[in-house]
Amino acid sequence: MNLREDANEIIKQSIQSVLPDTAIREALLGKEFSSGKLYLIAVGKAAWQMASAAVKVLDRPLNKGIVITKYDHVKGEIPGVSCYEAGHPIPDENSFLATEQAISLVQNLKSEDTVLFLLSGGGSALFEKPLISADSLRDVTNQLMACGADIVEINCLRKRLSAVKGGKFAKLCEPAQVYNIVLSDILGDPLDMIGSGPTYPDSSSAAEALAIVEKYDLKFNDEILDLLALETPKELTNIETKITGSVRNLCNAAQRALESLGYEVVYLTDQLACEAKEAGSFLAAIAKSYQKHPRSIAFLAGGETIVRLTGKGLGGRNQEIALSGAAGISGLNNTAIFSIGSDGTDGPTDAAGGYCDQDSAKCLKEQNINIYEVLKENDSYHALEKCDGLIKTGPTGTNVNDLSVLLIKR
Amino acid sequence: MNLREDANEIIKQSIQSVLPDTAIREALLGKEFSSGKLYLIAVGKAAWQMASAAVKVLDRPLNKGIVITKYDHVKGEIPGVSCYEAGHPIPDENSFLATEQAISLVQNLKSEDTVLFLLSGGGSALFEKPLISADSLRDVTNQLMACGADIVEINCLRKRLSAVKGGKFAKLCEPAQVYNIVLSDILGDPLDMIGSGPTYPDSSSAAEALAIVEKYDLKFNDEILDLLALETPKELTNIETKITGSVRNLCNAAQRALESLGYEVVYLTDQLACEAKEAGSFLAAIAKSYQKHPRSIAFLAGGETIVRLTGKGLGGRNQEIALSGAAGISGLNNTAIFSIGSDGTDGPTDAAGGYCDQDSAKCLKEQNINIYEVLKENDSYHALEKCDGLIKTGPTGTNVNDLSVLLIKR
Repeated sequence: MNLREDANEIIKQSIQSVLPDTAIREALLGKEFSSGKLYLIAVGKAAWQMASAAVKVLDRPLNKGIVITKYDHVKGEIPGVSCYEAGHPIPDENSFLATEQAISLVQNLKSEDTVLFLLSGGGSALFEKPLISADSLRDVTNQLMACGADIVEINCLRKRLSAVKGGKFAKLCEPAQVYNIVLSDILGDPLDMIGSGPTYPDSSSAAEALAIVEKYDLKFNDEILDLLALETPKELTNIETKITGSVRNLCNAAQRALESLGYEVVYLTDQLACEAKEAGSFLAAIAKSYQKHPRSIAFLAGGETIVRLTGKGLGGRNQEIALSGAAGISGLNNTAIFSIGSDGTDGPTDAAGGYCDQDSAKCLKEQNINIYEVLKENDSYHALEKCDGLIKTGPTGTNVNDLSVLLIKR
Repeated sequence: MNLREDANEIIKQSIQSVLPDTAIREALLGKEFSSGKLYLIAVGKAAWQMASAAVKVLDRPLNKGIVITKYDHVKGEIPGVSCYEAGHPIPDENSFLATEQAISLVQNLKSEDTVLFLLSGGGSALFEKPLISADSLRDVTNQLMACGADIVEINCLRKRLSAVKGGKFAKLCEPAQVYNIVLSDILGDPLDMIGSGPTYPDSSSAAEALAIVEKYDLKFNDEILDLLALETPKELTNIETKITGSVRNLCNAAQRALESLGYEVVYLTDQLACEAKEAGSFLAAIAKSYQKHPRSIAFLAGGETIVRLTGKGLGGRNQEIALSGAAGISGLNNTAIFSIGSDGTDGPTDAAGGYCDQDSAKCLKEQNINIYEVLKENDSYHALEKCDGLIKTGPTGTNVNDLSVLLIKR
């Protein structure tokens, strides 16, 4: 197999391992629930797939299930499950209505009952019951955006203004057991941040919330200030959590695939968050220093890089990693850099990412395409198109960030 | 020893290994020259130190020696050696006069004679005899700068307009043997680029030179075009070359120092060339994924990163790597990132680089210093000053790029 075939195989196997079906199957395999009733609540962009896979894997019928996902994300009926579609990224009336259904479902459960809670990215907007009016919430959100608070600070306040976020939904399920299966879209899997952590203990405190109000001199009424002063659940005794789909799983699967193809693997990180084209340059720098390595070797980095927009072209962060890498590995020996988004859509394009090898830069130069100018224009898609560097998988149905790999084949 | 003491020890040992004295000693140890006369020509910013070290190490006296270095870089007399100071980075009359002395020295040598040629960064400007008038050369340079040609293209043309660059000085030494000792300041040690390669075969061709003229539509007179059409030496039978000081040596020494301190070492690269603060972020991402590693582990990256100026603060690329790293490793366990320039002066500051550990970001936050804003202002020096993060070695007398290290101590 050549480098490109290796890349394709690694991509196939890695994404396969983080599909909702695989994640659910792994998490439920051999799992035994207590004798009571079994309810399912699935929230997030992958909720329908996760619920649908769970129903197939479970060895007993659900007593009832609810799916809350984005518009156009329900792909058919699931036996025993009511499916709702709602607003994302901004919650709408349907988010609130569907969430009320979920809350009703978990009223008056017994300790032998189980709530199977399937969470994926997008849950913050889809699963919400505000404790204040929609107008008040909008005002809070606007002030937070305007003052420059970071996402951790914003969530610290939001959780206190919600009836379900910050562990409160798990409280509502008590005394039933909650079994969480999480498909993580946030680097490092901070469980109290994914979907704003409805079923996970909150790590922020009321004191921190009030300090944020003071820090940014926010103008809130007494109703809001009273809510911010209330403590969120710090300990939950009725939950068990399994993260079965995350960028770490993606990287682990890539490592296994690489090893089965004969590569020695250096696992760099699963929390890459720097600028995309600089990550490509960093990987290329590694490539240069390993040209005399006697065996096939691969370096892998998972995460979610960023693109600083300086132009008006078409592309995505994964395509920029590959294209920027192409400049650095030009002329080396049997060396490639590829990068993909696990959701199969990199930026606003129909490509999952990009692939470049030692010949890509030369191929572009012959067509008078200057990689640095392309990157300045953020037009990686069109350049990659001209050196056969686009990777197209189609939408994969999962979203656990990105995978970047440097291959050196001997 | 704590993390900071480890860092200091690694820095001390790494820089020691690439000092001109060490480099010269290693290259000359056990080296035997043929029976004829022995001449020394040292060119570059470290020429004086290299010549001075060579004279001490050689077991026989020189027949004559010449040092050509920057103004204020001659630190005293060296027995048997004439020292010249000249213009850098723009060659001046003194560059030309001193170069003439070197050319005279190597006239009429015999095959049993040896020219010990000691080369360090800055040689391009200091060692030059143009084949065209100073005015013509200035015009060529201006056109090349204005048209957007890259450094490889510029050098391809420059070598053809010089009587000593591109291997021509080695030709002038024939039939004597030339023994090159090189202290490399360019990543990847491209020997025909360091000091424009006076004693190394040129890898560019006359055809390429003329293609560059056409590509940028350069307006040159016939005299220049005729020179560009002449081939530079492609094969030199009278040279032997040893690179004893380069960023690779710096990294190798760092690796040995780390290992002796009990760290497992991952040697990432010695050709890092991306944006400084993004490199810091990349190293921090690695740190996050290795927190559960059971043993002390270090990742090292040598090279020369770049800083994109967006502010007017004080700092340097190594200080930006450390400070940017601080944001990413904040709150981790016994983890540090440090970065130094081997010359001991990072940017226009009196610091060699920066050091940050898991507590640095917190320390800065308590002083209301926002790392991202500091980086936007390119003011890393003042922030590092406030968290005890400046590394000061003073000028080291060598220049073989930078060393960045991530330490995770268990």
